[in-house]
Amino acid sequence: MKDEAILLAHGSGGRLTHELIRDLFLSELSNPFLDALGDAAVLPPQSGRLALTTDSYVVRPVFFPGGDIGKLAVCGTVNDLSMVGARPLFLTIGFILEEGLPFADLRRIVRSAAQTAREAGVQIVAGDTKVVDRGSADQVFINTAGVGLIPEGVSLSPSAIRPGDVVLVSGTVGDHGIAVMAQREGLGLSTSLASDCAPLNGLAQAVVACGGVRVMRDPTRGGLATTLVELAQAGGVGLEIDESAVPVKDAVRGACELLGLDPLYVANEGKLVAVVAAEAADAALAAMQAHPLGRDARIIGRATDGHPGRVVLKTLLGVSRVVEMLTGEQLPRIC
Amino acid sequence: MKDEAILLAHGSGGRLTHELIRDLFLSELSNPFLDALGDAAVLPPQSGRLALTTDSYVVRPVFFPGGDIGKLAVCGTVNDLSMVGARPLFLTIGFILEEGLPFADLRRIVRSAAQTAREAGVQIVAGDTKVVDRGSADQVFINTAGVGLIPEGVSLSPSAIRPGDVVLVSGTVGDHGIAVMAQREGLGLSTSLASDCAPLNGLAQAVVACGGVRVMRDPTRGGLATTLVELAQAGGVGLEIDESAVPVKDAVRGACELLGLDPLYVANEGKLVAVVAAEAADAALAAMQAHPLGRDARIIGRATDGHPGRVVLKTLLGVSRVVEMLTGEQLPRIC
Repeated sequence: MKDEAILLAHGSGGRLTHELIRDLFLSELSNPFLDALGDAAVLPPQSGRLALTTDSYVVRPVFFPGGDIGKLAVCGTVNDLSMVGARPLFLTIGFILEEGLPFADLRRIVRSAAQTAREAGVQIVAGDTKVVDRGSADQVFINTAGVGLIPEGVSLSPSAIRPGDVVLVSGTVGDHGIAVMAQREGLGLSTSLASDCAPLNGLAQAVVACGGVRVMRDPTRGGLATTLVELAQAGGVGLEIDESAVPVKDAVRGACELLGLDPLYVANEGKLVAVVAAEAADAALAAMQAHPLGRDARIIGRATDGHPGRVVLKTLLGVSRVVEMLTGEQLPRIC
Repeated sequence: MKDEAILLAHGSGGRLTHELIRDLFLSELSNPFLDALGDAAVLPPQSGRLALTTDSYVVRPVFFPGGDIGKLAVCGTVNDLSMVGARPLFLTIGFILEEGLPFADLRRIVRSAAQTAREAGVQIVAGDTKVVDRGSADQVFINTAGVGLIPEGVSLSPSAIRPGDVVLVSGTVGDHGIAVMAQREGLGLSTSLASDCAPLNGLAQAVVACGGVRVMRDPTRGGLATTLVELAQAGGVGLEIDESAVPVKDAVRGACELLGLDPLYVANEGKLVAVVAAEAADAALAAMQAHPLGRDARIIGRATDGHPGRVVLKTLLGVSRVVEMLTGEQLPRIC
């Protein structure tokens, strides 16, 4: 099939669908739950609180420096599970393919998803493929959903944030959005721009193990700024952030200046924000920095009992301003 | 928002995304798990084997007699869980919207999904919305994933089929595919054509409660014929089907003749096929016929030790022929 393109009949449910499942999906993703090919995967008994999440992925282009839509789709759902303190276990994957998609592109995407699932220690146990006529979709869209198990005693929520708590970010912000944007627009910017797309379950578990974690979020669409506003609003607390403490790569800062973007609003796909009790902050920071995905972690601010529901940023220029959620859409189809 | 259309910024993750979540999704789908708006839903402890499944929906048109894409997306995943004997519990829903989609259409679709979830007794606990530029998708695509719990002692598999087992179908076949096709092509066929789209968990549980059920499947894409071939191949048994016993509505049969289609290959969204031990067949048939969604149930054939892996159809003309899976794609974007 390697020279072929996807046909409408690959989504028919009939013979070509079965060949696609056998020759591509089972060959790349095989595990006992998927291989059974039932209407639903039958999983082993679980005991404990479940976490459940979903995201669809429409990133353009589908291949970008540091990743592709397959890797992104696995990381995104692994990370959403990880942010509530869950150990990600099982994923589903649904493809919507545009007729004419090169089969080689699909194989590359599925391989990347499989490789990322192995890295994250999760199994893709159920899937679906639909094909739409040319012009009714843009190459490939993916949805993943995921199930995880939340260890006893772990309960993270913005409502747990208290004044005096410390805000950490696990590394540089804006890498994903700028890398995709530069690729899409053919900007010819620095070759050091790459997406940070990565599964965060290991890092998140290391942070939770320190104790004192109130809440975690991965700042994807809307960027760090929007995530902080969400936390302040949901927690009913104020947050004071020191812009000079937020790590931003020089190449990302340069690209943002060129494009008129603020790195605080640019999407990340391999970073987490954690709010932790003050006495646990040093341990959480050390745990992050000891992990390969958290080497550039920093303390970036504190919770306060002033201005509940608002984020106040002490800017690089030394003035303070209220941070708003992203308004409008600066980077469509970034994930 | 009722006069508005979907903008790219509704998928930004920022302010408009939050307004969409608050004004539409939370207002229609509210439950404690969804309302928490975490990166993943945190669910109560479950004990037992989980079932997990996913499907994407790209049906065109999105509104059709007997349903719409929202109802379809909930039924499809509820039904896939039900076919492995699970009680469906929690669903996720992911929307991919085309810029310019009328907000009123989206509200109608979400309301329909919510109503169907209530009917099926499941909760939609997590969701996601992406928006793509005009021309990069066709109005709206939906993915649902679902988690169910499999009661102790229930274990359904095609490998459990034995020669002599009885094959039942829960009602008339082809209704969904022909209803969608007629609407799409503006065929002006009989107004009695309507999709059979329905949540099958109640019917499936009633059948399983009879005992003796080997396996169940819902014959969606590819129709009854493709599902029977899948079962024969996966079970390594032959199936003998009596075409005259397969219930088909007159309006569907007429439309199929007009369109050159075989109702055995046309998609269903509210029917199930069950293979049951011979001694349990009467009870299973009675249980189906006692349920509002199974009134037209029939015994349509038997498993045999001849021709393993093949389905042989005794046709209306009295000759026997081997049934193949659907080849090609006769009805694209039917679900």
